Amino acid sequence: MNTAESSPPGSVGIVQTRYVELFSDGRSTLRLDCGATLAPVRVAFETYGTLNADKSNAILICHALSGTAHAAGRHHADDRKPGWWDNFIGPGKPFDTERFFVICSNNLGGCDGTTGPSSLDPTTGKPFGLRFPMITIADMARLQKGLIDHLGIPRLLAVAGGSMGGMIALQWALDYPNALRACVIIASTPRLSAQNIAFNAVARQAIMVDPNFNGGDYYGENVPRPVNGLALARMVAHITYLSEKGLHEKFGRQLQDRRELSFGFERDFAVESYLHYQGSSFVNKFDANTYLYITKAMDYFDPFPDPETTAKQLHKVAARMLVISFDTDWRFDTSRSKELVKMLNWHQKNVTFEQFRSIHGHDAFLLDDPLYMESLTSFLKRMHMETRHPTQSDP
Amino acid sequence: MNTAESSPPGSVGIVQTRYVELFSDGRSTLRLDCGATLAPVRVAFETYGTLNADKSNAILICHALSGTAHAAGRHHADDRKPGWWDNFIGPGKPFDTERFFVICSNNLGGCDGTTGPSSLDPTTGKPFGLRFPMITIADMARLQKGLIDHLGIPRLLAVAGGSMGGMIALQWALDYPNALRACVIIASTPRLSAQNIAFNAVARQAIMVDPNFNGGDYYGENVPRPVNGLALARMVAHITYLSEKGLHEKFGRQLQDRRELSFGFERDFAVESYLHYQGSSFVNKFDANTYLYITKAMDYFDPFPDPETTAKQLHKVAARMLVISFDTDWRFDTSRSKELVKMLNWHQKNVTFEQFRSIHGHDAFLLDDPLYMESLTSFLKRMHMETRHPTQSDP
Repeated sequence: MNTAESSPPGSVGIVQTRYVELFSDGRSTLRLDCGATLAPVRVAFETYGTLNADKSNAILICHALSGTAHAAGRHHADDRKPGWWDNFIGPGKPFDTERFFVICSNNLGGCDGTTGPSSLDPTTGKPFGLRFPMITIADMARLQKGLIDHLGIPRLLAVAGGSMGGMIALQWALDYPNALRACVIIASTPRLSAQNIAFNAVARQAIMVDPNFNGGDYYGENVPRPVNGLALARMVAHITYLSEKGLHEKFGRQLQDRRELSFGFERDFAVESYLHYQGSSFVNKFDANTYLYITKAMDYFDPFPDPETTAKQLHKVAARMLVISFDTDWRFDTSRSKELVKMLNWHQKNVTFEQFRSIHGHDAFLLDDPLYMESLTSFLKRMHMETRHPTQSDP
Repeated sequence: MNTAESSPPGSVGIVQTRYVELFSDGRSTLRLDCGATLAPVRVAFETYGTLNADKSNAILICHALSGTAHAAGRHHADDRKPGWWDNFIGPGKPFDTERFFVICSNNLGGCDGTTGPSSLDPTTGKPFGLRFPMITIADMARLQKGLIDHLGIPRLLAVAGGSMGGMIALQWALDYPNALRACVIIASTPRLSAQNIAFNAVARQAIMVDPNFNGGDYYGENVPRPVNGLALARMVAHITYLSEKGLHEKFGRQLQDRRELSFGFERDFAVESYLHYQGSSFVNKFDANTYLYITKAMDYFDPFPDPETTAKQLHKVAARMLVISFDTDWRFDTSRSKELVKMLNWHQKNVTFEQFRSIHGHDAFLLDDPLYMESLTSFLKRMHMETRHPTQSDP
C-alpha cells in the first residue's frame, strides 16, 4: 500500500486512497439517526503501516470538517502537498507507522470519496443534493465501524481526532466501548456552544443565499457552483481557527503589496488577502452541500444533554481517554475539554488531560509542537505496551 | 425642540431630527484625508436639553457603525422605540439634559440623513454609490466640527462615544484640542486588530458578492438591493458584539419553536433564529454602501502607528480623558483600552480608566449598568463643575 523509497525520512511515502462499498449486499443498510437508511455506502480510506498478526495495532484517525481520507504521505512523487496530518503520521512520529497500522477514512457526508450529498442517489441516478438524509456524528462513527469490521479488526488500539474528529472519537468510546482501547480527543468539545452554532448558521446562510446554490442542485458540467457562498463560509470559519494573538503576530496591520492605503475597496491589509486566499482556494476542493451537512451534524452533537443521559452514556465507556486542548483555542476553549474531563473523572473513567501552550488557536492541533507530540507519543506507546502486557484493569 | 409633556420620567420627550447644509456657500468644501472634497454636505442631527448662556454645557455624542442622529427620545407619540442611547440621555441620566445640551449627528458616509454614498452626487444628479470618496474617522470628526462651529459653540464640554464612536471622540481630542474639555472613549480601541480587519473583510465580501450589489449601483425604485449580503455582514458582526458567555446564558442550545431537532435545514436553535432576525431587520434600516465605507474607515483608523507619531499626536491633547472598557468585550478587548490609557499616561495626559464587569460583551456600552452609569455621571459632573470653577490646570 505504501512505499517509503525515495521519500523523506519520517514519511509514509507514496500512498493511494482505496474505496470500499459497504452495505452493498442488497439487504443491509446504514441506519441513520434521522430514521433514514443508506445503501450502498462507499467509503474512501487510506492506511499507513502494517497490521500485525493479532490485529492489535490499528489506530483510526478521524478527520475534522474539511479533512479527507488522505492523512499522510503523497499520492505521487510530484505531489506538492502531503496528507493533512503528515507531520503526525509516519515512522518515528506520534502515530508511528513502524509500530501502528493507521487508518483514516473520509467521513460520511464528505466530498472526498465517501458517500455524501454529491454522490449519485441510486434511486434516481442523480446527485443527492439536499435529498441526502441529515447525518450525525454518531452516523459517521457508525459508518467507520462498518469499515473497521470490513477490515476484520475486532478492536482498535485507539481512535483519535482533533476538532470534529475529536467528537467522532468520543462517539466511538460511547457507542462501541469494546471496539477501542483508547480514545484521543484533541481541541474538541462535548457540544457546540451558542456562539459555535451562530458561526455555523452564518456559514450555511452564506451558501444558501448564493444564487448558484439552486436548492443544492448545482452539480454537472458547466453548472455554476455556489463558490462565493462557500468561500465566505470558509473565511468566517477560518477566523475562528486562529487566535487573535496569532493573527496579530502573523499579519498585524501590515499592508499587502503596497506602501500606502489604497483609499479604495482594494484589499489593503495582508490579513484580508490571506483570508480571501483561504476562501477562494477552499472552493476548489470542497463541496458546499457537504459543508451544510457537516456543520449541521456538529450543531446536533450533544451526547451529554443532562446528568441522567450523561450517566447512561458514560456507564459503558471502557477506553482510556486522552483529552488535549490549547490555551489560545477560542473556537473550542480549554474549558470545554475540562468539562469533558470532569464528566469522565466523576464517572470514574480513566482519563488524562493536557493543555498545551500555542499561539495558533484551534489550528494548533494540526501543527508541530514538541510537547504536544511527545504527549501523544507517550500515551500511544503506553497503550501499545498494554496490548502486550494487559493489566488487571484491562476490560 | 423637545417637549417632555406626557413622556415617561427621564425621557427627553418628542424630538425631531434637524438637517443643515454645510459647505454650501459655493466656495468652502469639506477636505477629506483621501484628497477629495465634498460640497455641500448635509448633516442630520438632534439636540436634547438647552444650551446655556455661555455655551459651556454642550456634549457631542458620536455614534457607532450602525447608529443614527436619533440618540434619545421619540419622534412621535406612537414611536415604538426611543433613540439608540435613550437610557443614557435625559433628565437625571448620565448625559443629564437638565444640565447639559446634548448633540448627536449622523456620521459622514452614513445613511440616516448625513451625506453618504446613497446621497445624490451634485455633479451627476445620481446617487454616489462607490463614486463616493473614501472617508476616514478624522473626516467624520472634521464634519462634526463643522456642525459644532455652525451651532456657534466654541468649546464642547465633552465629546463621547462607544465603539467606533470612541474612535471619533479620540480623534477630536487629537485634532481639535481646544474645542473640547473632556473626551469619553467607551469600549473602543486605538486601532483595529488583524482579527477585526478580518471580520470587516468578510462583511464587505458578503455585500460585494451579492448579485444585487451591482458595483454599488442599486438605488432607485424597484431595484433589488443587496439585502442578503448586508444581512450576512450584520450576522457576522453581531456575533462579535456579544460575549460567548452572554450568548450561552441567553440561548445556550435551546431549540426554537420545537421540541425535537428538525433533521433538516431548518433553524433548529434559538440562537440561529435570533441571528437571522438581526440580519434581516438590519437591512430595512441600513445601506450596504455605507457599511462598506464605514468598515473601511475603521480599518484605516490608526492614529498611533509608531512612537514618533504617537508623541506628535498626543503632544497637543488637552482634554480630560475617560476610557471605559468591559471585561467580556472580545471585539475591542480591555487590553486595547489599556494600551490607549498607557500611551496617554506616558505622555502625561489627564486620563481616568475604568473596566466594568458585564456579561454583554461589546454591546455592554449601550446597556444599563449602575456602576458604569454612575462613573459616567460623576465624570461629567466634575467636568461641568470645572467650567464654573476653572482649576489652575485648566488650559
